[in-house]
Amino acid sequence: MGKEPQKVQIIPLGGLGEIGKNMTVIQYEDDILLIDAGLMFPDEDMLGIDLVIPDITYLLENSDKVRGIVLTHGHEDHIGALPYVLKQIDVPVYGTRLTLGILEGRLKENNVDCGNLHAVMPGDIINAGCFSVGFIRVNHSIPDAVGLSIKTPLGMIVHTGDFKLDYTPIDGKMTDFKRFSDLGNKGVLLMMADSTNAEKEGHTSSERTVGIAFDKAFHNAKQRIIVATFSSNVHRIQQVIDTACRYKRKVAILGRSMVNVVNISLELGYIHAPEGTLIDIDEIGNYTGSQVVIITTGSQGEPMSALTRMAMSDHRKVNIVPGDTIIISATPIPGNEKLVSRTVDNLLKLGANVIYGRNEGIHVSGHASQEELKLMHNLVRPKFFMPVHGEYHHLVKHAKLARDLGMPKENIFIGENGQILEITKEKGALTGKVTAGRVLVDGLGVGDVGNIVLRDRRQLSQDGILIIVLTMNKQTGEVLSGPDIVSRGFVYVRESEALMDEARERVEQALERCQDSNITEWAAIKSNVRDALGRYLFEKTRRRPMILPIIMEV
Amino acid sequence: MGKEPQKVQIIPLGGLGEIGKNMTVIQYEDDILLIDAGLMFPDEDMLGIDLVIPDITYLLENSDKVRGIVLTHGHEDHIGALPYVLKQIDVPVYGTRLTLGILEGRLKENNVDCGNLHAVMPGDIINAGCFSVGFIRVNHSIPDAVGLSIKTPLGMIVHTGDFKLDYTPIDGKMTDFKRFSDLGNKGVLLMMADSTNAEKEGHTSSERTVGIAFDKAFHNAKQRIIVATFSSNVHRIQQVIDTACRYKRKVAILGRSMVNVVNISLELGYIHAPEGTLIDIDEIGNYTGSQVVIITTGSQGEPMSALTRMAMSDHRKVNIVPGDTIIISATPIPGNEKLVSRTVDNLLKLGANVIYGRNEGIHVSGHASQEELKLMHNLVRPKFFMPVHGEYHHLVKHAKLARDLGMPKENIFIGENGQILEITKEKGALTGKVTAGRVLVDGLGVGDVGNIVLRDRRQLSQDGILIIVLTMNKQTGEVLSGPDIVSRGFVYVRESEALMDEARERVEQALERCQDSNITEWAAIKSNVRDALGRYLFEKTRRRPMILPIIMEV
Repeated sequence: MGKEPQKVQIIPLGGLGEIGKNMTVIQYEDDILLIDAGLMFPDEDMLGIDLVIPDITYLLENSDKVRGIVLTHGHEDHIGALPYVLKQIDVPVYGTRLTLGILEGRLKENNVDCGNLHAVMPGDIINAGCFSVGFIRVNHSIPDAVGLSIKTPLGMIVHTGDFKLDYTPIDGKMTDFKRFSDLGNKGVLLMMADSTNAEKEGHTSSERTVGIAFDKAFHNAKQRIIVATFSSNVHRIQQVIDTACRYKRKVAILGRSMVNVVNISLELGYIHAPEGTLIDIDEIGNYTGSQVVIITTGSQGEPMSALTRMAMSDHRKVNIVPGDTIIISATPIPGNEKLVSRTVDNLLKLGANVIYGRNEGIHVSGHASQEELKLMHNLVRPKFFMPVHGEYHHLVKHAKLARDLGMPKENIFIGENGQILEITKEKGALTGKVTAGRVLVDGLGVGDVGNIVLRDRRQLSQDGILIIVLTMNKQTGEVLSGPDIVSRGFVYVRESEALMDEARERVEQALERCQDSNITEWAAIKSNVRDALGRYLFEKTRRRPMILPIIMEV
Repeated sequence: MGKEPQKVQIIPLGGLGEIGKNMTVIQYEDDILLIDAGLMFPDEDMLGIDLVIPDITYLLENSDKVRGIVLTHGHEDHIGALPYVLKQIDVPVYGTRLTLGILEGRLKENNVDCGNLHAVMPGDIINAGCFSVGFIRVNHSIPDAVGLSIKTPLGMIVHTGDFKLDYTPIDGKMTDFKRFSDLGNKGVLLMMADSTNAEKEGHTSSERTVGIAFDKAFHNAKQRIIVATFSSNVHRIQQVIDTACRYKRKVAILGRSMVNVVNISLELGYIHAPEGTLIDIDEIGNYTGSQVVIITTGSQGEPMSALTRMAMSDHRKVNIVPGDTIIISATPIPGNEKLVSRTVDNLLKLGANVIYGRNEGIHVSGHASQEELKLMHNLVRPKFFMPVHGEYHHLVKHAKLARDLGMPKENIFIGENGQILEITKEKGALTGKVTAGRVLVDGLGVGDVGNIVLRDRRQLSQDGILIIVLTMNKQTGEVLSGPDIVSRGFVYVRESEALMDEARERVEQALERCQDSNITEWAAIKSNVRDALGRYLFEKTRRRPMILPIIMEV
C-alpha cells in the first residue's frame, strides 16, 4: 500500500435508488464482507420477467476475498438473491434463526446446498476476515431482524438494516437502544440507515395498534373471518391467532408461502398457538362460520394468490359467502393499487364485509418515520452518513434530515449502486465505480433476457406481429409460393379481411419493384417489404406491429 | 302501454364499477336523454390500447329516440367518447361554454362536425323530448362544471355531476346550494351523485389552499420555477399566474394540451392574465431564472409529456439546471405512482428542488368527501338514490353513507353498467340489462382489438414468439427447406445457440415421427411440432413462448 492512506470501501451493489435487491460490499484491503443479497420484483416495463437480482460481477471477480455474508432479516429483498449468489460463491452465511429458517426453504427450492449457514443471536459477534460483526436487535415487520455493528481496522460502521422503533412490540423485544447508544458513545465512523419512510412525518405506529383494530373487527363479525397479510409478518399472524383465541375461533392457514412461514415459525418458536387452535383448512367444514378464522395470502391482489382466487370464486377450498368478514391487513405497494381494488370489489360483490384501507388501523409500516430516524441519528452520532434502502428521493430526504440535525454536508454521501464510497479516519469521498446493475430472471434463465429481448417484447405487446413468408427459387429468384401473411396480436383477421388483402398486395408490389430494380440481396428485399408494409399499416391503423419477412429457398 | 305503470328508466352505459367513461341514459317511453360520453384510460392488461370508450349498441339501436346529450363538464372521462358517438348519432349537444370549447378541439382533431353544439349557462333550462334539463353550477377541478336537474313526467331527477363544495372558489362562483335546496324542497324522485371520494373522511380542501402553498414555494425559490399540473385545471393555472404576478415573474405555457386549454380559457375569459405576463416559451432566454415560471404537463409522469422529457434531459426547449424549483401540483392517479417517482428522482439528480407529495399542500381533489356528500344528500333529500362515478367499493361506501343518513335500504340502488333502474313514482327496481361494456380504441381502430388479439399480445409480451417455417413438396410431402426457426422476444439467440440448435432438432424429430406415422394433415403436423417444441422449451426455460409453425408448399 506504500504511503497511500488506509481506507475502507463501501460498495452498494443494490438497494440505492430503488426499493429492493439490497446488497452492500464492505471492503478493507483483501477482505470483503457482504451485507444481504436481496431480490426485487420487476417493473411493469420488464415484460415477462419474474424477478430481478443484483449484478454480482464484482463479487465474482473478487470471490477469493469474500469472507462472509451477513443477513439483517428474512425478507425477499434481503435474502432473495442468495440462491443465485451461493451457486457461484461458497462462503459462510450468518443470520438469526428465523432468517436462516426462511432462507433454507428458498435454497432447497432452488437445489442449493445449505451447509454453510450459521445461526447467530442478537448480541453475538462473529469474525469475517479483518471485520468483526455484531448483531443488534431491531424491530421490523418480521421478527429476528437485526442491525449490524461492523468493526473495521479504521473504525466502527453501523448498518441499521430495515428498522422501526416499536415501544410495545408483540414479542416484548425492543430495538436495542442501549447497544446503538454505546456504539455512539465509543465513536462511529459511518452509519448506513434505512430510508424507506424518510418522507413520512412523525412516528410509525406500534404493531400492537393493529391488534386493537383486529379486536374491534372480530367483535363485530358474526360469521367467518378471513385475514390476508404478508406471510413474513409473523407478529401480525400471532396477533390474529391471539385475537382468535379470545373470540374462541379456530385458525386455519392457507396459501403456500403462508403455510411455509407459519410452519417454520411454529417450529422455531416464533409463533405460539394454544393446543387445538390451529386446524387444517380441510377441517373448516366441521365448524360454523363464527368459529373460524382463515389466515391467507393475497393482500396485494396477486393474481394467483388464495384471496384473489376466492374473490374470483375460483378457490378449491373456500367459497366466499355473504356475511364473511375479510380483513386486508396490508397497504398496497405502489403499482398494486388497482389489483387490490379489484379484489375488494369482487369480494364486496359476493356479499362479504371487507375491511381495507388506511383508515381502519389494520396495518402499520415496518420502517422508521422521521422522528425515529432522528432518534437513531442522535444515538449513533456517526462521523459519516450514507442513506440506504430507498429510491433517490427517499435518500435525498434522509440526507436532508441528517443535515437538519447538524451534520456537515461534506460528511453525507448519497451514493448509487456500484459507486464506491471510500472513507479514511478523516474523510470520505465517492470515488470510482464497479460493475453493478440488474440481472433479469425469467423462468430458469438468469440474465439471458436483456434489452434486445425486452424491446422486442414491448413492441410485440403493443401492436403484435406480422410474419411474411415466401419461398424462392435459389437459382432464379422466382417466387415459388407466398407471400403468405400471418398475424398475431395485430387485428382479429376475420374482421379485417380487406386490410389483410391489401397488405398482401403491398408486399407483392414491393417484391415486384425489387425484381424490376434487380434487387436480389435478401436483406435488401426484406427491408423493402418491411418498409412498404409498415408504411401502409401505419397509415391505415396508426399502429406499428413488428414486421418479420422470412424468405425460404429451395 | 295499457295498464303498465308509467316508469322512467335509468341505464348507465359507463362509470359504474369503474372510474371513467361516464355515460348515462335517461329514458321515458320513446325519449332518451344522454348524460355525458366519456372515455377511460386502459388498464395495464389492455396491451397496446390507447383508450377505452363505452359500448353504445343500445344508443345505436334506439338512435331515433335520442333527443339530446347534456354534458356536466369538460374532462376526458365525461366528453372523450363524443368524437366516436357523434360520428354515429347526430343530436344536439348541450354544455357550458368552457366544456364546449374543449370539446370542439377534440372534435376537430377527429374530423367530426361541430355544428350541433349548444352553449348553456348555469341556471339555464333546455328541453329534450319530454325532459327539461336545468344546469346547476357546481365546483370541480375544472371551471364551468354543472350538475343537472332533469324534469321527467314522473318527477325530478338530480344528477350532481362531478362536484365538491368549495366555500372559497377561485372564480368566486360557488356550488349553487340554493338551487339544490329548492329542488329538495319541491321533491326529488331520484338523485345520482359522484362517489369518487366517498371513502374520504371529512371535507375536501378549497382550491384556494393550493394558492397559499404556491405562495410559500415562490417565496423560497431563488431561480426558475416550473409547475406541472393537469391542463384542464384552469383555476390551478390561474393561481400560478396570480402568484407569478405577485412575484414579478413572467409565465410561459408548455405542452400541447396545456397550450390548447390555456388558449381556449383566455379566449373565453376563464383565465385572466395582466398584459405582458404571458410570454412564449422561446422568450424565456430573455429573462433570468428568477423572472420566469413555466406551466407544463407531465404531473402524472406520462412518458411523452414535457416534464418527463425535461427530467430525462430530452426536452428541446427546457434544460433543468441546479436551482430550478419544480412543483408537481397533482397526486399520482393509482397506477402512475412509479412513473411519478421516477420523474421526481430524475429531476432531483439534475439538481432541481422538487416539491411533490401529499404533505406539501400543492394539490387538492375536485371531488366531494363524506361531509360534503352528506350535505348534498340533506339538501336534495331524494326518494331514491343511485351512487355513480366510482369503482364498486366507492359505490358501496356511498350507499352506506346514504343509509347512515336514514334512507331506507330498498330505496338505494347500486347498479352496474348496462343494468336498468326502473322507477315509478312509488318504487324503484333494478330490472333487465342492455348491451354495455367497453370498446377498445387502438390507433385508428375502434373495436377491432378484442379478447383474442389481447390474449395474443399478452402471451407475446411474456415470453415472445418462435416461428418455425418449412417448405414442403405439395405432392410428396418431402421437406424441401427448413425447418428454420426465428425467434423474437424469447431469448437473445446469439447467447443461446445450443438451446436453439436443440430446439431445431426437436422439430425435426417431430416431423420425422409424423412421416413415420403417415400424418399428412397440416393441422396435425403443426400441432405435433408445437407440442414437442413447447414441451422442450418449457422444460429447459420454464417459459411458454407462442409457437407458430408455418408450412409453405411448392
